[in-house]
Amino acid sequence: MTAAGRAGTTVDDLAEGLHQAVLDLLPASHDDPDLGDFVRLMRDYPARAGKRVRGRLVLRSTAAHGGDPAAALVVAAALELFQNWVLVHDDIEDDSEERRGLPALHRSVGIPIALNVGDAMHVYMWAALFDLRTQVGFDADAIRREFVWMIHRTAEGQHLDLTWVAQGRFDVSEDAYLAMVRRKTAAYTVTSPLRLGAHASGRAPHPALPSVGERLGAAFQIRDDVLNLQRSDGNLYGKEFAGDLYEAKRTLVLAHALAHASSAEADEAIARLRPPREQRSEDDVRWLLDLFERRGSLRYAQERAEALAEAALEELEAIVSELPGRDASRALLTELQRLTRRVS
Amino acid sequence: MTAAGRAGTTVDDLAEGLHQAVLDLLPASHDDPDLGDFVRLMRDYPARAGKRVRGRLVLRSTAAHGGDPAAALVVAAALELFQNWVLVHDDIEDDSEERRGLPALHRSVGIPIALNVGDAMHVYMWAALFDLRTQVGFDADAIRREFVWMIHRTAEGQHLDLTWVAQGRFDVSEDAYLAMVRRKTAAYTVTSPLRLGAHASGRAPHPALPSVGERLGAAFQIRDDVLNLQRSDGNLYGKEFAGDLYEAKRTLVLAHALAHASSAEADEAIARLRPPREQRSEDDVRWLLDLFERRGSLRYAQERAEALAEAALEELEAIVSELPGRDASRALLTELQRLTRRVS
Repeated sequence: MTAAGRAGTTVDDLAEGLHQAVLDLLPASHDDPDLGDFVRLMRDYPARAGKRVRGRLVLRSTAAHGGDPAAALVVAAALELFQNWVLVHDDIEDDSEERRGLPALHRSVGIPIALNVGDAMHVYMWAALFDLRTQVGFDADAIRREFVWMIHRTAEGQHLDLTWVAQGRFDVSEDAYLAMVRRKTAAYTVTSPLRLGAHASGRAPHPALPSVGERLGAAFQIRDDVLNLQRSDGNLYGKEFAGDLYEAKRTLVLAHALAHASSAEADEAIARLRPPREQRSEDDVRWLLDLFERRGSLRYAQERAEALAEAALEELEAIVSELPGRDASRALLTELQRLTRRVS
Repeated sequence: MTAAGRAGTTVDDLAEGLHQAVLDLLPASHDDPDLGDFVRLMRDYPARAGKRVRGRLVLRSTAAHGGDPAAALVVAAALELFQNWVLVHDDIEDDSEERRGLPALHRSVGIPIALNVGDAMHVYMWAALFDLRTQVGFDADAIRREFVWMIHRTAEGQHLDLTWVAQGRFDVSEDAYLAMVRRKTAAYTVTSPLRLGAHASGRAPHPALPSVGERLGAAFQIRDDVLNLQRSDGNLYGKEFAGDLYEAKRTLVLAHALAHASSAEADEAIARLRPPREQRSEDDVRWLLDLFERRGSLRYAQERAEALAEAALEELEAIVSELPGRDASRALLTELQRLTRRVS
């Protein structure tokens, strides 16, 4: 078996341990019994089942770049911890009902406690990254800079999204939606995981990774939006069905439908989306889903995601073909391919 | 003039520049015009007038420890930036109305946008701390570890406080209140500023600093609580008058009043404090202030703060008398003394 082959096996083993590695970045208990609950709340989201897509990508990218995925495990875990604290805050911002099949944290403990728990989780992420030391084949400073860049991009994208909501704006073009998603999702879902793998191997990331990552990340988010609107009897998709419509989220599906609706339909759609979430009825959601069906918006979004992904994957294939970890590069491409075609 | 004397002058000059130094840790503008507003919101709280107590303490402690306060300016600014992002989140958690004489951020832009802005500010704080390099007389790693410890303490204290609010608990003893305040306020207001000055001078902090800091920090918070309940015609104290009563905050004043009230008074006090904030009337607040007056609770709290401060300052005086910066140590003590006796 080649070294790359062994590295491929190791990545799968390491990925299995990612769930625990994330929890290991957080305290297991507190010596003050009054704060036992605080620790339990920090561990709540990380303990829930998740796909840990981004952490796995870090491990695979490290192997592809010829680095040691075991040394990158804590980086992958820190990225997953980022995802978890951001979700605690996002769920407040979107007033989401569920997360991974259970109530969103702020729905069970209230906004104030959940917000503070998210802040504490955020600091444990940085604490893990501080402990990393730069050495040959591992650029800890570049890893920390990547996290700074990534979180800023994510926060900027989130700001654009939240501003549309706050201003009650629904006239969001496909271009504006994609620009938002490039910041909000693509940076931390694809670009940064790929680049973190390079840094964790002591290699300079390929300069085209952001462009590839933006398109793959957009494809991932569009697929996520489509899945949210497809009811699956087998409960393949854990997130609350059509939660995005209850939350009146701006998605590519909605942008397409509004752009192709009659003016009367568009007015009615917006009238149904504008009121606050608690006033939105099942009837509103059904009407909107019917509109999407009539205008072929789900299908359009899915095809757009596939087109974005296909071109980007081709480009990425050329990039990773020059990396030392050949089998690992293949596994990385397969993983990214799966992401934009996933059914859950 | 002695070296220590010059250091004292320098600290005052540096402290003058602290306001700008905090803003300099944040971007001044954004190349994407849609995100200009995001940058403006991050700079909102730091641009408001503030006392910058904690940053000044870092500078004075550095000079007292014989370090170069100019090298500690970015550390002091990062601490002030911490204070600012925490206030953005705290104001959401407490649903405060005002901050430094202007509407709280979430009251003008909504909770979702304000929460996200606070997260982005948080990351700029870490970005500034990453850029610090350890060298002789400056322990950057210890500074970062101090921030991790400090934010965790603060979040733990905040959790205790928010839990009492969420559970509608008013039977908070003086001991429980002080234990909460030691975490929530004392760590980042006194203990960490003092220790950051040691780290920024490459010296090991005196092991008694946490004990001293806990008492001075508690005295500071109690004084803050008392000031909140004293209306001053000259608007000496910018914070919303009696905001703590509208927010039904657990304070030493309230703990004392409830412990010394008749059972009928205690029941009425709690009945007036339990409903959500928007249901609390001026009449409720007046009734509670009368109870505090009858039971001598404001006076008790003020005396408790002074007793805590006096003993701690004596102990601190002995500690700093062995430090190299003699005039700077004197200035540090004076500053801390002023904090617990301030009228604004």
